[in-house]
Amino acid sequence: MGYEEFTIEGRNAVIEAYRSGRTIDKLYLLDGCQDGPVMTIKREAKKKGTPVKFVTKERLDQISETGKHQGVIAFAAAYTYAEVEDILEAAREKGEAPFLFLLDNIEDPHNLGAIIRTANLAGAHGIIIPKNRAVGLTATVAKTSAGAINYTPVARVTNLARTIEELKKEGIWFVCADMGGTPMYDLDLKGAIGVVIGSEGEGVGRLTKEKCDMAAAIPMKGNIDSLNASVAAGVLAYEIVRQRLKG
Amino acid sequence: MGYEEFTIEGRNAVIEAYRSGRTIDKLYLLDGCQDGPVMTIKREAKKKGTPVKFVTKERLDQISETGKHQGVIAFAAAYTYAEVEDILEAAREKGEAPFLFLLDNIEDPHNLGAIIRTANLAGAHGIIIPKNRAVGLTATVAKTSAGAINYTPVARVTNLARTIEELKKEGIWFVCADMGGTPMYDLDLKGAIGVVIGSEGEGVGRLTKEKCDMAAAIPMKGNIDSLNASVAAGVLAYEIVRQRLKG
Repeated sequence: MGYEEFTIEGRNAVIEAYRSGRTIDKLYLLDGCQDGPVMTIKREAKKKGTPVKFVTKERLDQISETGKHQGVIAFAAAYTYAEVEDILEAAREKGEAPFLFLLDNIEDPHNLGAIIRTANLAGAHGIIIPKNRAVGLTATVAKTSAGAINYTPVARVTNLARTIEELKKEGIWFVCADMGGTPMYDLDLKGAIGVVIGSEGEGVGRLTKEKCDMAAAIPMKGNIDSLNASVAAGVLAYEIVRQRLKG
Repeated sequence: MGYEEFTIEGRNAVIEAYRSGRTIDKLYLLDGCQDGPVMTIKREAKKKGTPVKFVTKERLDQISETGKHQGVIAFAAAYTYAEVEDILEAAREKGEAPFLFLLDNIEDPHNLGAIIRTANLAGAHGIIIPKNRAVGLTATVAKTSAGAINYTPVARVTNLARTIEELKKEGIWFVCADMGGTPMYDLDLKGAIGVVIGSEGEGVGRLTKEKCDMAAAIPMKGNIDSLNASVAAGVLAYEIVRQRLKG
């Protein structure tokens, strides 16, 4: 697309976009589709004054970026990136110690989307990604995030290692997911924390790893090398949730 | 494909297939490709006597089921399903209390693959899936499993609820992932256990849920409904690992 517009694809993703207050510029619906979720979307569209166009499946397939539109494609202004400061402010507003994710070159949009989803549900305040090499906020990321992208801020920075340096001054501790680290159950992960997740295959980069205060290992008993990046992020996130809950 | 043959696609997936002892019937490699992983695959192919054919990228794209062949496609006999008894036997051999996953109609091959990968690394002994409706062991599942499919047995059963009934007689307790359940940290998940994960959207079916001894909730703080199914499986798996480790 020439101008900054994104598609939001799939029923839940579109319903979540409406719920979160995002402005939908226009909506394409599969002609003749009448089930519950589609009726909900139609009601929202009417309430918000979104122009609706009923189109064929072929037309939707043509437009779809994810290939999984489920008869619903919305067009909205591009997802905007937050500033790192917005993430810290979100934590302050809730009166909570900052809890954030830093993704070191995650390239798979499904992984980025799933991590945004997990971060939202685990109560993290935001996600920081590097500007270069990594995947950005595409329609696939939005769909995989199941709407979490509308709530959980994502900031982009030029240099992840430098951002870690700066955030340390705010009293945030950094832990990277690393097979050679201390078993995560033996670390104190209760305070203000930034969790660094590396790309599949390469893990966390050396420069970034050196800036971290701790390295957390997820115990592995099996025959293969590593967990999927979004599963590893989820497992670490919930060890933090557990430690915070038990106080 | 007419006969029962599967493609194994991508470098790690093919290397893992060789490592695990799987017989590769033939191998297609991108002509001219000489990097490290490809050289490893060539060596393995020579050692095992696999016929190798050097082909163009177009040919590989044509054959590829996953769209992510990375210049390497192997052909092997179809992944074979295990019997439920094989899974119990695997636990006995290791002298461990059985730890298994039951997937109630997971339809997304990426989720099935990621769950097999997680099950392997968390030390689970196998996975049980229903014969109907759910996704089977396709090339996409194999690739997403990062090779774990070669080690962790997957059994198919006609009726998941009936299988749970039978396994209860073996002293296995069943816990389903359910938002309305008890927080997972408050449940005793240390003994012989079967973890039931539902499909995205629908969750665990009513009949299956009724057979379970416990319902485990993953605490959710966010704005959206639920975790990705493979992330939820990972988070629950590692709460079990944690409880087993602390004994």
